[in-house]
Amino acid sequence: MGTKAKTAITPSRSEDYAEWYQQVIKASDMADRSPVRGCMVIKPWGYALWENIVRELDDRFKATGVKNAYFPLFIPISFLEREAEHVEGFAKECAVVTHHRLEKGPNGGLTPAGELAEPLVVRPTSETIIGDSFAKWVSSYRDLPLLINQWVNVVRWEMRTRIFLRTSEFLWQEGHTVHASAEDALERTHQMLRLYADFVENCLGMPVIQGRKTASERFPGAVDTLCIEAMMQDRKALQAGTSHFLGQNFAKASDIKFQTAEENEEFAWTTSWGTSTRMIGGLIMIHGDDDGVIMPPRVSPAHLVLLPIFKSDDERAKVMEFTSRLAEELRGIYYHHNRIRVEIDDRNIGGARGWDWIKKGIPLRVEIGPRDIAENAVFVGRRDQAHRQKTSIQRDVFVNTVGDLLDEIQQNIFRRAEASRNENTLEIDDREDFYRFFTPTNVEKPEIHGGFALSHWCGDASCEAKIKEELAVTIRCIPLDNPAEKGRCICCGKPSGERVVFAKAY
Amino acid sequence: MGTKAKTAITPSRSEDYAEWYQQVIKASDMADRSPVRGCMVIKPWGYALWENIVRELDDRFKATGVKNAYFPLFIPISFLEREAEHVEGFAKECAVVTHHRLEKGPNGGLTPAGELAEPLVVRPTSETIIGDSFAKWVSSYRDLPLLINQWVNVVRWEMRTRIFLRTSEFLWQEGHTVHASAEDALERTHQMLRLYADFVENCLGMPVIQGRKTASERFPGAVDTLCIEAMMQDRKALQAGTSHFLGQNFAKASDIKFQTAEENEEFAWTTSWGTSTRMIGGLIMIHGDDDGVIMPPRVSPAHLVLLPIFKSDDERAKVMEFTSRLAEELRGIYYHHNRIRVEIDDRNIGGARGWDWIKKGIPLRVEIGPRDIAENAVFVGRRDQAHRQKTSIQRDVFVNTVGDLLDEIQQNIFRRAEASRNENTLEIDDREDFYRFFTPTNVEKPEIHGGFALSHWCGDASCEAKIKEELAVTIRCIPLDNPAEKGRCICCGKPSGERVVFAKAY
Repeated sequence: MGTKAKTAITPSRSEDYAEWYQQVIKASDMADRSPVRGCMVIKPWGYALWENIVRELDDRFKATGVKNAYFPLFIPISFLEREAEHVEGFAKECAVVTHHRLEKGPNGGLTPAGELAEPLVVRPTSETIIGDSFAKWVSSYRDLPLLINQWVNVVRWEMRTRIFLRTSEFLWQEGHTVHASAEDALERTHQMLRLYADFVENCLGMPVIQGRKTASERFPGAVDTLCIEAMMQDRKALQAGTSHFLGQNFAKASDIKFQTAEENEEFAWTTSWGTSTRMIGGLIMIHGDDDGVIMPPRVSPAHLVLLPIFKSDDERAKVMEFTSRLAEELRGIYYHHNRIRVEIDDRNIGGARGWDWIKKGIPLRVEIGPRDIAENAVFVGRRDQAHRQKTSIQRDVFVNTVGDLLDEIQQNIFRRAEASRNENTLEIDDREDFYRFFTPTNVEKPEIHGGFALSHWCGDASCEAKIKEELAVTIRCIPLDNPAEKGRCICCGKPSGERVVFAKAY
Repeated sequence: MGTKAKTAITPSRSEDYAEWYQQVIKASDMADRSPVRGCMVIKPWGYALWENIVRELDDRFKATGVKNAYFPLFIPISFLEREAEHVEGFAKECAVVTHHRLEKGPNGGLTPAGELAEPLVVRPTSETIIGDSFAKWVSSYRDLPLLINQWVNVVRWEMRTRIFLRTSEFLWQEGHTVHASAEDALERTHQMLRLYADFVENCLGMPVIQGRKTASERFPGAVDTLCIEAMMQDRKALQAGTSHFLGQNFAKASDIKFQTAEENEEFAWTTSWGTSTRMIGGLIMIHGDDDGVIMPPRVSPAHLVLLPIFKSDDERAKVMEFTSRLAEELRGIYYHHNRIRVEIDDRNIGGARGWDWIKKGIPLRVEIGPRDIAENAVFVGRRDQAHRQKTSIQRDVFVNTVGDLLDEIQQNIFRRAEASRNENTLEIDDREDFYRFFTPTNVEKPEIHGGFALSHWCGDASCEAKIKEELAVTIRCIPLDNPAEKGRCICCGKPSGERVVFAKAY
C-alpha cells in the first residue's frame, strides 16, 4: 500500500463516510447545526446553492402553467384529522402550538400562557390546509386544472437528524393541483416526476431511476407515489423527489367538488409533489470527494473564482487590474440562461486560499500571477480533476470557452456518478446472493455494502417487510420503464412479473 | 348632487374606507382570509406581486454586499430572554410550541403529547437566534462587516388582524449586520433606510418621509429606529419599512465579540432592518380607487392584458393569430430590467372581462377586435385613467412605446399620491387647531381626519403619551432632513428645536 495522499477532508470517504459527510459540510461553510434541536442554519454558500435550485425549478414549474401562492404555516388539528391515513402518518412527529403568549412564571422565568382552544400543528405538509382553500376556489370544470405551488418551510419532528438529509425544519416546495378527471391528475403526477428527473439529472448531475413506490412506502393518503431514486457513493439510495396521485381521497377530505360540463357535481382529483433541501445532501454525497464538495456548474453558487497572485504593491496593482477586467468580461457572458457568477478572492493567504475554494467545490479556480499576465494567460484548475492538475490557457481562449469548460465538468460528474451506479447495480435472482450482497463483509469498512439489487418480488407486503427487518433493505421503487419479465420472488420464490429496485436508503 | 358613477367596488372609499379595503382585495383576487385565526392565504395574483417585490429588493440588497441565509423558525424561550426590552416587546404576542407529537386522547380526538423540556417560540423576529450564529461566525475585525439577510415567514399573535396590514403570520425579509464600529453600523442603518425609500418610491410609487422614531416607538432593544412613513388615502400613516441601529445591546445579549486590529476584544455593533407583505396593504390603500386596485407597473404581476374580441370562429382565428404574435413581440421587450409580462384573456364573457382586469389593477388593457386589426391598431385602456377613456394606437407604435406608457403610469400614480399627501400635510402651531385637525367633524364620514401635522414637540414622552391618549395620534417620525426651527411644543408649550410628524396610523 502506498502512502496516503494529502486530502482536505478527514476522515476520507472510505474511512468513515458518515463522518466525512459532516466534515465536508463544515469545510465548505454551507450549513451549521443550530441550538434548536434538529434545525439547521443554512449559511450563505449553502443558501446561494438553494436559491439557484429554486430559480431553476420555479422557472420549469411556471412553464407548465403552475402559479405560486402562500398558505398558512399553522394547521388546526381538526384539519389534519380529515384524512385518516394522512394524520396517522404525521401525528407522531409534528410541532404543536398550544399557547399564544408568554408570562412571568412563579420562578421568574417565562412560561406559556393564553392557551388556544384548538392546538395548531406547524405544517409538515399542506394538503389539508390548501384543500380547504381549493374547496372554495373550485366550483366548475372551467376552474380546472388548478395548478398551485408554494416555496416554504415545513417541520417534521425527526428524532435522528442530519444536516440537509433529515432535519426537523427544512425548506421545500409543495405543488398541489386539482383536476376534472383521474387521467388528467395522473398525467400531471407523471409530468412533474419527469420534470424533477430532468432537473436533478441535468442541473444537479445526479442520475436517477424513475419509479413507483410500493404501498408501504406511499405518502400517507396517496393512491400512488412516484419517486426518483439516486445512488450515493456509499451505494445507499436517496429519494430526491416525489409526486403523488391522491385520487379523490383529499378532495373528499376537504370537500373539493366541481360541476361537470354535463352539470353533475363530482369530487375532483388531486396531486401533490415536492422536492426539498434534502437534494443538497444528495448532491454533496454523490459528487463530493476527499477534498470536499463538488458543485455542479449549473447550480453552483459561483462558477469560478479568480485568484490574483502578487508579492509587491506594484505587482498587486497590475494583477488586480487584469483580474477586474477579466471578471467584468466574464460576468457579461451567459452560461445557459444565467450570467457567469464570478468570485474574486484577493486575500493574501497563500495556498490555504486555493484549498478553501476546493473545499467549497467551485467548478473553476483561475490563478492570475505576473507570469500569467506576461503570457496573457490564466492558470486554471478544474474541480473535477486532481487539485495539482492545472492548465495554462490563453486569456481570450478561456473567456470564449468558459461555458464549454463548465459543461464538460457538469457532464463529467454526471457520467462518473452514472458509471458508479451502474457498476453497483446487479440483477440478483438467488436468495443467498441477495443476502450476501447486502451483508457487510469487510469488518473494517462496515458501511460498504452492495448497492442496487434488481430482483423479483411477488408483490406481497410480508416479503417486503421480512427483507426490511432482516437486512434493513427496502424496495426503493418499481421502475416506470420496467420490462415485463418472468421470475421468482427473491424472498418467497412465488412467481413475479417484473424486477424491483432493492437498496438500503437514507 | 349628481347621480353616482358606476364603480366596480361597493362601498366606495368615501362611504367606508375600511370596508372598501376588504372589498378591493376580494375583487382583485389577491388574498383571502384563512380558517387559521389571523393568518392569510396569498393567492397567485397577490403572490406574484410579492415575488416581484422580493426580486427588486433582493437585487438591491445584494448590490450592497448582503448575502442571504436561513435560520431556524423556532427560538428557545431562553434566547428571547437574553435582551430584556426585546422579550418584553414580543412576549405578549407569540406562538408557543410546547409539544412534538399528537396522541389519541381519552375522547378519541388527538391531543398534544411529547412535552418539550424548553418551549419554543415561533420567530416574531430573529435577532436572538441569528445573534447566536453570529457569535460563532465573528472572531476578528477581518470578519466584519457581516451582512446577512433572510426572506422568511414570522408570527406575531395579533388580536385584531387585517389582510396584509396586520396578520398573525406574514412574510418579510430581515437583514442583520455586524460591524466593528458604531459609525459603520449607523451608516449601514441609514443606507438601508435610503434603499427602502428608493424602492418604495420608485417601484411601489409611494412617496415616503424618512425619519427617526421617538423612544416610545422604537423596536424593542434598539438604540435607534429609522423608518419610512407614507400617507394613505384616508390620510392615516403607514410605516412601510424600518431600519434599526442596535448599538451593542444585542451583541452583548448574544456575546458577539471580535478582536480589533490592535488585538483588543470588543463587543460588535449590530443593525437589523425589515420590510414585509404589509407594503402590499399600503400599495392597495395609497393607489386604489373605487374601481379596485391600481398596480404600479414596476412590480405589477403583469404589465398588460391582451383582450381579443371576436364573434365568429373565422374572426376568432384571425384575432387570436394577431394577438399571439403581438404577445410574443411584447414579451421580448425589456421594461427596466425585466421583460414585459403579458396576460392573454380569451374568455368570451363580454364586458365582465374588462372589469376583472380593472379590479386587478393591471396597468394596460389592450383590446383587439377585427376592426382594430383592419387598421393595424390596438385599443388601449390605462388603469390610471377612467375606464371608458381608451385610445386607438397603431400596433407598432404601441410596441415601441409600451415602456414609456408604463413609466407614465408609474409616475402619474406617484405624483397623485404625493399631491394628496402634500395637500393633507399642514404645519400647525396652535393647540386648538391641532385638536381640531385630528377630530372628526363630519359625523357621516367619521374616518376622514386631518393627515400629517408638522408640529413642534418638546421631546417629553408625557406630551407624546397625552396626545396619543386623547387623539389616538402618534409621532410617526422626526424627519431626517428636518430643518432646525425654534417653536413651542404643541402639547405643553415648552421650547422645541424642530417639528415632528404627527398622524393617526395603521
